[in-house]
Amino acid sequence: MAAMKLLALRSAYKTASFHFGSRQLPLRRNYVRAFSAAIMSPPSMAVVYDQHGPPDQLTRIVEFPPVEIKANDVCVKMLAAPINPSDINRIEGVYPVRPVPPAVGGYEGVGEVYAVGSGVKGLSPGDWVIPSPPSFGTWQSYIVQEQSVWHKINKDTPMEYAATVTVNPLTAFRMLKDFVQLNSGDAIVQNGATSMVGQCIIQLARIQGVHSINIIRDRAGADEVKENLKKLGADEVFTESQLEVKKVKDLLGSLPEPALGFNCVGGNAATLVLKFLRSGGTMVTYGGMSKKPVTVSTSSFIFKDLSLRGFWLQKWMSSDKADECRDMIDQLLGLMRDGKIKYDMELVPFNDFHIALDKALGKQGSNTKQVLIF
Amino acid sequence: MAAMKLLALRSAYKTASFHFGSRQLPLRRNYVRAFSAAIMSPPSMAVVYDQHGPPDQLTRIVEFPPVEIKANDVCVKMLAAPINPSDINRIEGVYPVRPVPPAVGGYEGVGEVYAVGSGVKGLSPGDWVIPSPPSFGTWQSYIVQEQSVWHKINKDTPMEYAATVTVNPLTAFRMLKDFVQLNSGDAIVQNGATSMVGQCIIQLARIQGVHSINIIRDRAGADEVKENLKKLGADEVFTESQLEVKKVKDLLGSLPEPALGFNCVGGNAATLVLKFLRSGGTMVTYGGMSKKPVTVSTSSFIFKDLSLRGFWLQKWMSSDKADECRDMIDQLLGLMRDGKIKYDMELVPFNDFHIALDKALGKQGSNTKQVLIF
Repeated sequence: MAAMKLLALRSAYKTASFHFGSRQLPLRRNYVRAFSAAIMSPPSMAVVYDQHGPPDQLTRIVEFPPVEIKANDVCVKMLAAPINPSDINRIEGVYPVRPVPPAVGGYEGVGEVYAVGSGVKGLSPGDWVIPSPPSFGTWQSYIVQEQSVWHKINKDTPMEYAATVTVNPLTAFRMLKDFVQLNSGDAIVQNGATSMVGQCIIQLARIQGVHSINIIRDRAGADEVKENLKKLGADEVFTESQLEVKKVKDLLGSLPEPALGFNCVGGNAATLVLKFLRSGGTMVTYGGMSKKPVTVSTSSFIFKDLSLRGFWLQKWMSSDKADECRDMIDQLLGLMRDGKIKYDMELVPFNDFHIALDKALGKQGSNTKQVLIF
Repeated sequence: MAAMKLLALRSAYKTASFHFGSRQLPLRRNYVRAFSAAIMSPPSMAVVYDQHGPPDQLTRIVEFPPVEIKANDVCVKMLAAPINPSDINRIEGVYPVRPVPPAVGGYEGVGEVYAVGSGVKGLSPGDWVIPSPPSFGTWQSYIVQEQSVWHKINKDTPMEYAATVTVNPLTAFRMLKDFVQLNSGDAIVQNGATSMVGQCIIQLARIQGVHSINIIRDRAGADEVKENLKKLGADEVFTESQLEVKKVKDLLGSLPEPALGFNCVGGNAATLVLKFLRSGGTMVTYGGMSKKPVTVSTSSFIFKDLSLRGFWLQKWMSSDKADECRDMIDQLLGLMRDGKIKYDMELVPFNDFHIALDKALGKQGSNTKQVLIF
C-alpha cells in the first residue's frame, strides 16, 4: 500500500495538477502544506484515470495526500456514489463535457460533512450533503470543495437514493415538465423503460395521474420484468416484438394516445415511440443505448406534426438553475423517503470498484445500477 | 365534343354528385334548372378523375353543364391555376386530406368574376379573385362558389403569380416566421433550394436581411443553377457532393451558423441541413422529394439540442387563420408586383393539360412549375 501511495504521488507530481471536482489543485503545494499548521483533510482514496480510453483498463485506485481545508471549504467524507453510463463515457472521452485527465471519476454521490473551514455557515460535521449541481470527481473517499458546491439534505433519506438522486431521477422529473403540459388522465410512452430514468418516469407520471406506455427490449424473463414495472405503476409494458403489428395504437385499449414520448434507445425502439404518439406529439431523446440513430418519415413531420427534441440535464443545470435544481432534488428526496420512488440498485464496497465497473460495463450480464459504498 | 359532354354527364349521373371546390353539387338538379329562369353559369371545362391512381392515366377533360348562381354565389371564370406536387398526390390518393373521387383536380388559382348572385356585396364582374384558403377543384374554366370563398386581389399582379401565391410562397413566408425569431444578420440553411418554396425562402430571407445557405442536388448545369439562385439573393449555394467534407461549417466563411433550416428532400440532404445548424437550432421538414426518411444521431438531440419540426400549410390554414392568411397573401402579392419575389414558371394552355401534367410528373426532364392558362 505504501508503494502504491508513492507511485500515485509520483504520477501526480509528474502531471503537476489534479482534478478534484471542478477545481484543479496543485498537488505539490498541498503536499507541502500537509506539514504546516493548516487544517488538512484526511488522505483520500480515489478512482483515477490518466488518459481517455477503456475504463476497465485505465482506472486505478490511488491514495491522495491530505488537502488544506480553507476558510470557505467543506471536507466531505463520501458515503456512496453510483457508476452512471455518462461516467463511463467521460472516461472513454466520448462525452462532450468532461474533465481533462488525469482526473477522478464519478459525477454524483452523497457524503457526510467531516470538517468545515472557519468561514463556513449552515453546514456542520455530521450533516449529509450532495454536490449540487453535480461535479466531477465523486469516486473518492474525501472531497474538499467550497461550501457553495454542497447541498445539505435530510439524513432520513436512504443513502443509495441520496447518492443517485440527481443524474437520473432529476432527468425524469424535468422531462415530464419541460416539453408538454401533461394533465391527469393523459399518457406518455417511453422505450428503455427498465432504465433508472425509465423507472422514475413511470412513478413520477403515476404520481401526476399520467398513464405510462412502456417498451422494453425482448429478453429472457420479460414477463417478470413487465410485472415489476407494473408494480411501479406502469399501465402497459410491451416488448418490441409485441409491437410488430400494423397499428400499435390498436393496443392502447382505453388509454389515450400519448402526447409525449421518451427515447433513450434509438433505432426501431424510437420508431415505436413515434408510432404511439398522437398527432402534434413530441418525442424527447435523452439517450441512445442501441447506438442506432433515430429515423423519421417525412409524413411524421408534415402530416402528423410530430416534434423531436432532446434533453441533457448537464446543459439544463448549467443555465443558472442551481436554486431550482436544489428545490427539485428536495422534492425527489421526499418522494424517496416516502417510498414513492424506487429503483433497482446494487451496493458494492468501494474497494470492489473494478467488479462494480465490470457490471456497469455489462460484462457480467447484469445491468443493475452499481452504487459504490465508501 | 357533344359526345364527350354526353359521356361526362352520363358518368356524373351515375355517381349522383360531383365536387366543385368543397361543395357537392347534385348534378341532375342543376341540369334541370338549366332550363328554368335561374341565373346560370356557363358550361365549364374541367379536369376530373373518377378514382385514385396515376394522374396521367386517370384524368380527363370533361364539360360540365351550367350551374345555378344562387344569391350568395359568385361565378368565377378561371384565368390560371398551377399543377403542384400536392395536386398530384391528391389524385394518387396518397395525400391525407383530399376530395372523394369523382373530383375536379387543382387547389389554387386566380380567376375573374364573371357573374354574382343578388346578395353578393364587395365583388363585381371583372374583379380578380383567388380562393382563400384554397379549395379543391381549380382546374376548371368556371367555378361557382359562395362569396366567402373568394378573396379579391389587386389586378396589377402578374396573373401567374396570383395563381400560385398561396401553396408555395405562403409556406415559405410562414416557415420563416413560425419557428425561430430571425433577426437581420442571421442565417438560414435549406435543401431543395431550386423548388418554388426554396426560391421564395431565399428572397423573403433576403428582404429581412437574413442570409441563406442553399443546398442543391448534383446535376448537369449546376453552375448555372447556382448563378440563378445567387441572382435571387442566395449567399451560398452548394451541391450535395461539395458538402462531402469533414466539417461543413468550415465552408461558412463569414456567415453565422444558421439557427433555422428547411428540409424538403430527406435522406442525406436533410443530414446536411442538420450539420450546418448551430447548437439549439431547428430544422423544419415540409417535403420529402427523395422519398427517403430523415435520420438523426442521438447526440444531435442531446448534446447539440436540435429540434426537428414539420410544417403543413393546409393544417395551418384550417386553424381559424383565414383573415391572417389573406393579409399575408396581400403582402406577398405586393412583393410580386414590385418584382421582389420571382420564380420560374411555364405557362401552358388549359387544353394542353396532359402535356403540362407529364412535365409536372417529371416525365420530360423539366421540373419547371406548370401553370394552366384558361
